[in-house]
Amino acid sequence: MKKLINNPTNVVEEMIEGYMKAHSDYIRQLPENNRSLVTARQTRDNKVGILIGGGSGHEPGFMGYVGDGMADGVAVGNIFASPSPDPILEVTKAIDKGAGVVYLYGNYAGDVMNFGMAAEMADLEEDIQVGSALATDDVASAPKEEMEKRRGIAGEFFIYKAAGAAADFGYNLENVVRVAEKANSNTRSMGVGLSPCSLPQTGKPSFELRENEMEIGLGHHGEPGIEKGPLETADHVADRLVKDILQDIQINKGEQVAVLINGLGSTPRMELYIVYRRVEQLLKEQGIGIYRSYVGDYITSLEMGGCSVTIMKLDAELKKTMDHPVNCPMFVQK
Amino acid sequence: MKKLINNPTNVVEEMIEGYMKAHSDYIRQLPENNRSLVTARQTRDNKVGILIGGGSGHEPGFMGYVGDGMADGVAVGNIFASPSPDPILEVTKAIDKGAGVVYLYGNYAGDVMNFGMAAEMADLEEDIQVGSALATDDVASAPKEEMEKRRGIAGEFFIYKAAGAAADFGYNLENVVRVAEKANSNTRSMGVGLSPCSLPQTGKPSFELRENEMEIGLGHHGEPGIEKGPLETADHVADRLVKDILQDIQINKGEQVAVLINGLGSTPRMELYIVYRRVEQLLKEQGIGIYRSYVGDYITSLEMGGCSVTIMKLDAELKKTMDHPVNCPMFVQK
Repeated sequence: MKKLINNPTNVVEEMIEGYMKAHSDYIRQLPENNRSLVTARQTRDNKVGILIGGGSGHEPGFMGYVGDGMADGVAVGNIFASPSPDPILEVTKAIDKGAGVVYLYGNYAGDVMNFGMAAEMADLEEDIQVGSALATDDVASAPKEEMEKRRGIAGEFFIYKAAGAAADFGYNLENVVRVAEKANSNTRSMGVGLSPCSLPQTGKPSFELRENEMEIGLGHHGEPGIEKGPLETADHVADRLVKDILQDIQINKGEQVAVLINGLGSTPRMELYIVYRRVEQLLKEQGIGIYRSYVGDYITSLEMGGCSVTIMKLDAELKKTMDHPVNCPMFVQK
Repeated sequence: MKKLINNPTNVVEEMIEGYMKAHSDYIRQLPENNRSLVTARQTRDNKVGILIGGGSGHEPGFMGYVGDGMADGVAVGNIFASPSPDPILEVTKAIDKGAGVVYLYGNYAGDVMNFGMAAEMADLEEDIQVGSALATDDVASAPKEEMEKRRGIAGEFFIYKAAGAAADFGYNLENVVRVAEKANSNTRSMGVGLSPCSLPQTGKPSFELRENEMEIGLGHHGEPGIEKGPLETADHVADRLVKDILQDIQINKGEQVAVLINGLGSTPRMELYIVYRRVEQLLKEQGIGIYRSYVGDYITSLEMGGCSVTIMKLDAELKKTMDHPVNCPMFVQK
């Protein structure tokens, strides 16, 4: 696939360079490590720090969510690869305001290892208290009995939003982790892949699908889904995704949810709204209310085609976190 | 190309339906015409109304920019086709607060005809004063001596933003038009196309490019550009686009600009920031300051690949319009 890049080995550094130039009022690079980015905004003393991170290629995830109301810092990995412990540790040191730091990341082996090591180093070497919450929202990635094996996909956005708000509310470390974990355990996603992306260094497609084929449950890095089949209508796809979600988590009539229709990179907004239209109908039929909705590219996979549906069941506390204003370079909510 | 849609003839209606469900706090559909959408927010009496519009498939353009600080209403056309005069007239009637309405649209034959007819009808039948400002920012679409033949592309975003702010400042119709025209005459865009989109009804690609070929100056609907050639690096492309812009409009050392790197639909944010990085270097070399920068998908062409660079020369008044906060479903600026 054609890419507007220079040397493929420099794409992440050049992206960061461009991002810093464009958003220097929001974010700055630590001199200790060029993959360590922290907020340039004033943050309150004693606020719990929120640290996010993961591989590149998911923009706006993850650097796009550093700013007021969400994360205080991000550790940036190579494309689709976890950041190493060093940049995570540097961000931790920079954003700790005496109340500790919460790590939020998706449940992938590399991330679990590197964020785990960084947390240990922060504790032992720097005496910084670190809490963690993993995103495991992808219903397709493992059966319900093995929830701990599930991957994190677009639901990470809700977890950042909830935890970022909780930290702003002045919650302590334990309570920020509690809110993040509640956000995760109340959140389910199901995706559909239509077309692959390609990595800049190889130029090879991340997976193969035939003309007019789709894959239900496809992962954000091309991990195999649960079912390949002929491309269906948007309504059929939405029916399937919502059905799988509602079979996995009980949401009662009268309850309210937040909905995210997330584009994977090359799916037009038009199609995302057509999917939203059907998701709203389905939830309404079940008597489930939509408290807030988000439609757009929130966590992408370069130019992958397809989308995911994410539903988060809300209680009063999570509603409050969804209402909290955010001001980040790639996401603003008044 | 694969699309997540239902019946291809219903894509615009179903998109609108989804959009209304997702953003009912921002926008409402007029009962008189389902292609007439107006703000659901409180607007001041005697504020000049801002009406935008054009074909669908350019989302966030155009419905995404109805809200606080930008447009008060939008007339929605079929994919890549102008709205007809009726929905434009209905929006005009709905958003006129006694101070008249300004139409902002791109310089395309269909739009010029239909917005022109609607303006005449508004004047003669409804006694509503209408002003107009056309976007002609696309440098590649006609030589400088035939500026009036140039098409509007991503620069439309700056014109909406400038005029929307001017209307909020309480400017009268004449002055809102003046600001919109100044924004346009200070704005230049140059784009590059890498891969086509396809219309839902035909499934056919909007243009053809060979493997590893790019087209400089390609239009938003697949209109031919000015040069096809082998795909160059992001830096080479940025050099070319900025050179063409700076040859077309004089921007002196010490002056300040707003920059927009606009993705056409399937170009990852990563690549847009790599382009921005180079554009910033080039402007810096010329002693031109960047007052504000926007990087992302602002006016797309379904899933087209490529991007455009837009530069608007700023004076004090235009700076003030760029600073003005905006709260729309697809664009928020604090």
